Amino acid sequence: MKQSKYFNPTLRDNPADAEIKSHQLLVRAGFIRQNASGIYSYLPLGKKVLSKIEQVIRKELDEAGAQELLMPAIQPAELWQETGRWDVYGPELMRLKDRHGRPFALGATHEELITSLVRDELSSYKQLPVTLYQIQTKYRDERRPRFGLLRGREFIMKDAYSFHSSEEQLDDAYKLMHKTYSKIFTSLGLDFRPVVADSGAIGGKDTEEFMALSSVGEDTIAYSDSSDYAANIEMAEVHVQYEKSDEEELPFAKGEVETSLDHQIHTTVMKVEDEMIAVLVRGDHELNEIKVKNLYGTNMVEVQNEEVDLKEFKGTVIADTAVKAIANGSIIGAYAYHNVNPDRDLSIERYEDLRFIQEGDPSPDGNGTIVFAEGIEIGQVFKLGQTYSETMGAKFLDEGGKAQPLIMGCYGIGVSRTLAAIAEQNADDNGLRWPLAVTPYHVHLITINVKDADQSDLSDRLYDSLKDEHDVLYDDRKERAGVKFKDADLIGLPLRVVVGKKANEGIVEVKRRDTGESIEVPVDNLNSTLQQLLEQMN
Amino acid sequence: MKQSKYFNPTLRDNPADAEIKSHQLLVRAGFIRQNASGIYSYLPLGKKVLSKIEQVIRKELDEAGAQELLMPAIQPAELWQETGRWDVYGPELMRLKDRHGRPFALGATHEELITSLVRDELSSYKQLPVTLYQIQTKYRDERRPRFGLLRGREFIMKDAYSFHSSEEQLDDAYKLMHKTYSKIFTSLGLDFRPVVADSGAIGGKDTEEFMALSSVGEDTIAYSDSSDYAANIEMAEVHVQYEKSDEEELPFAKGEVETSLDHQIHTTVMKVEDEMIAVLVRGDHELNEIKVKNLYGTNMVEVQNEEVDLKEFKGTVIADTAVKAIANGSIIGAYAYHNVNPDRDLSIERYEDLRFIQEGDPSPDGNGTIVFAEGIEIGQVFKLGQTYSETMGAKFLDEGGKAQPLIMGCYGIGVSRTLAAIAEQNADDNGLRWPLAVTPYHVHLITINVKDADQSDLSDRLYDSLKDEHDVLYDDRKERAGVKFKDADLIGLPLRVVVGKKANEGIVEVKRRDTGESIEVPVDNLNSTLQQLLEQMN
Repeated sequence: MKQSKYFNPTLRDNPADAEIKSHQLLVRAGFIRQNASGIYSYLPLGKKVLSKIEQVIRKELDEAGAQELLMPAIQPAELWQETGRWDVYGPELMRLKDRHGRPFALGATHEELITSLVRDELSSYKQLPVTLYQIQTKYRDERRPRFGLLRGREFIMKDAYSFHSSEEQLDDAYKLMHKTYSKIFTSLGLDFRPVVADSGAIGGKDTEEFMALSSVGEDTIAYSDSSDYAANIEMAEVHVQYEKSDEEELPFAKGEVETSLDHQIHTTVMKVEDEMIAVLVRGDHELNEIKVKNLYGTNMVEVQNEEVDLKEFKGTVIADTAVKAIANGSIIGAYAYHNVNPDRDLSIERYEDLRFIQEGDPSPDGNGTIVFAEGIEIGQVFKLGQTYSETMGAKFLDEGGKAQPLIMGCYGIGVSRTLAAIAEQNADDNGLRWPLAVTPYHVHLITINVKDADQSDLSDRLYDSLKDEHDVLYDDRKERAGVKFKDADLIGLPLRVVVGKKANEGIVEVKRRDTGESIEVPVDNLNSTLQQLLEQMN
Repeated sequence: MKQSKYFNPTLRDNPADAEIKSHQLLVRAGFIRQNASGIYSYLPLGKKVLSKIEQVIRKELDEAGAQELLMPAIQPAELWQETGRWDVYGPELMRLKDRHGRPFALGATHEELITSLVRDELSSYKQLPVTLYQIQTKYRDERRPRFGLLRGREFIMKDAYSFHSSEEQLDDAYKLMHKTYSKIFTSLGLDFRPVVADSGAIGGKDTEEFMALSSVGEDTIAYSDSSDYAANIEMAEVHVQYEKSDEEELPFAKGEVETSLDHQIHTTVMKVEDEMIAVLVRGDHELNEIKVKNLYGTNMVEVQNEEVDLKEFKGTVIADTAVKAIANGSIIGAYAYHNVNPDRDLSIERYEDLRFIQEGDPSPDGNGTIVFAEGIEIGQVFKLGQTYSETMGAKFLDEGGKAQPLIMGCYGIGVSRTLAAIAEQNADDNGLRWPLAVTPYHVHLITINVKDADQSDLSDRLYDSLKDEHDVLYDDRKERAGVKFKDADLIGLPLRVVVGKKANEGIVEVKRRDTGESIEVPVDNLNSTLQQLLEQMN
């Protein structure tokens, strides 16, 4: 492709709203453009990368036996009403009415639609298991779209759904998809980690997220420094054994005294469904609301903004296990006490793991110590179970002829977000640095001075001879060398071939974008040199 | 792919709402499913055909130097307000508001969006010409969605836009795209015709539609029986020379007398912008409103439901050229006259070509006679000119440094509609009959009786050996032979390999879907036989 007629508008400066590297560089290098908040166009370079990512995903899923289909973005409201999610989803679900006033949603996800598709069709255990997937555009009206493609309102997802006649079948599909995801993200050259995650409002059981490690990630991963253990901090269990000190228990008393944080007891009052619950954690720990939700098996948990006197509190009191070991602790605030010995002084109904894990905690699997990293969620695998098939009446006949709800799994990859994650992990101060698997072109052919006949003749000749073997972007523009090099660094193709002053001697310069190394190559050896370098980089 | 675990639900009966063959068969054979009126899912077989169509389109467009990008479906209302189309488009344009109450359209087309994308970027004649395209989902809230994929509300289009610094550049791009479309539709095995079309409300000049010939087409094509001439009947010019007969002119008189249709003068009153116009055509001709619009260069034409006395009429009177030659004609209705000789008796301001062409008329190019055919519009090429660039301020600097609006072309292909057109043209009473270029699989391997060990062993062996060379769908289901054959006919793969009673002798049957011919083949020759047949069919 000749760059003089290529639609690749580059910018000298970062766009004002771009806070992170991938967003800045993808816009500046002309891969994407914003059309509205959280809504983007993929320009030719960006579209090329997107297609390559999709190819990698498609290849691995097809090999895993998944079947591609394509569902619509517009979905009838009735389907969402069947599962109750029409009401549960807030303004994030984009809604519209057709000319007859009938309500529709723009699909934020496709559990309802696919369940409606299969419910009259997958009717026998003999047809199972089946895994269906699509690569398709999704809509979520994020409250705060940001970070370019990382948190958009219109974005591209690969979503897969599997259907089974038994839990064992689901387990197998889940494992296979887990393995397939690892293959996909490895092929894409990503530094990633599968982590244990929370099943959240979607319902279901086992779930893991695939996280691309990155300092700009919106999720924190807790992982072991000496094992494979990794979990979203929301989900990491805390397995610390606390021993109470031998310290003599002093008499319980009103009023605040100064103590270290690990001697303080912090209280949070929550309305759990209709019950008031006071949750205690140690002052140096942080309450993890999700653990409270999971303890009570409900999403209806509201933190109350009130202080209570624990001696007068009418609801249930529960505490994190660390609280049990506090000797002569203190409660601060409006209803302060000191010399608190929880088992003696407070009516604690149960001690549970209720706090966030911290760096330095022992790893829950018993191996090593927990450290934190930031991650971008690029994929998720999920055992849905029968939540959707039950409410939507999607049943199959088992071997005994009995009707049972289909057992389901679902598996997502944020395709456009993966593009951003790759950019985020593969960039330096000068621009992007595409891995071979997804680079829009392999070779950037640059003529230093197109007005020099030697240079421009040789460049044309090289372009003609190289373009059948390699994907070549040819900078034939009448721009200054400095502008061309800046753009080339920004765009970040793996190999650069520069035709300059030594064109009349038949010598060009070949430079690697990743290491910055450059060598002079006689044009007769150019093709083989490029071949070799590309193999080395693979 | 093994059919026992393939998501391919087939139906015995036609769906109640399916009026045409392609709709009936695509649903029955499990290629598509309706999710709401005019909104469909592509099941695995349908998705495969869709992807192959897209590949053909992409290949030819890339070869023509067009650059692929991807724009969003959601478009800010402001862009549509800039061109005024926010108001011009009726309920066909689907609209929604985001969580902040900001209005958006779901793109029915992308002229506004692409013009906004390039307006700050294509700023010099040096960057031109550029042709950009996307394959993307479009939304039009049709008043009456029908015919399956032929008239849907969510559908897939390839839309391309070209940008130029001169009319000559636009002409070249238009011609190239015209040629490219012919290549695409030829590759797809379609029986089609490019026809002259009306530029309609979109504004612009030259335009041609690509029509797949089909009795279910919603458009009528007028074409010459002896030349390449073809036009949408809306646009076909009438070049007939009428001679007035020598008949003596009788005295003009009030009142109705009986005459043949070709001696009658029919009057239609129209409000053209703010002027009242009476339009006369001969009784055996049909008024073509579009010709009136084009004559006055406006879309603001409203037919008035009133009869007028032509002798008292206060507005302008115009007539079709055929009217001039009427001798002693008659005007019927409330204000009837007879012995009307138009030039003598009526104040006709001008005679113009104002009627629809008819079968039997001479072809406007002077070669042959006009016949009609029905067609499905599958593509359109269009010289937009400066309509959008002017209103949206998309300017480039010409060689003299002067700012000028970009000169634009646009080029569409209805991708999902093309799928339906292919199905419509390639089917018989038993089912579909896919052309090689887009068939979801090449070979349908069918075991008559899977419980017979010889048959099922041989089938498994053949599947393993064939599937690396060919795209094979393997019907390994425990169904009766009749069910399998019916499904195979419905699905319509080009070649069928049947493993039956002669499995123990190593003999299978190979059958062509198109001709119905079948031969017995020893398994050792199977691969080469299939290869030969596929080459013959190509």
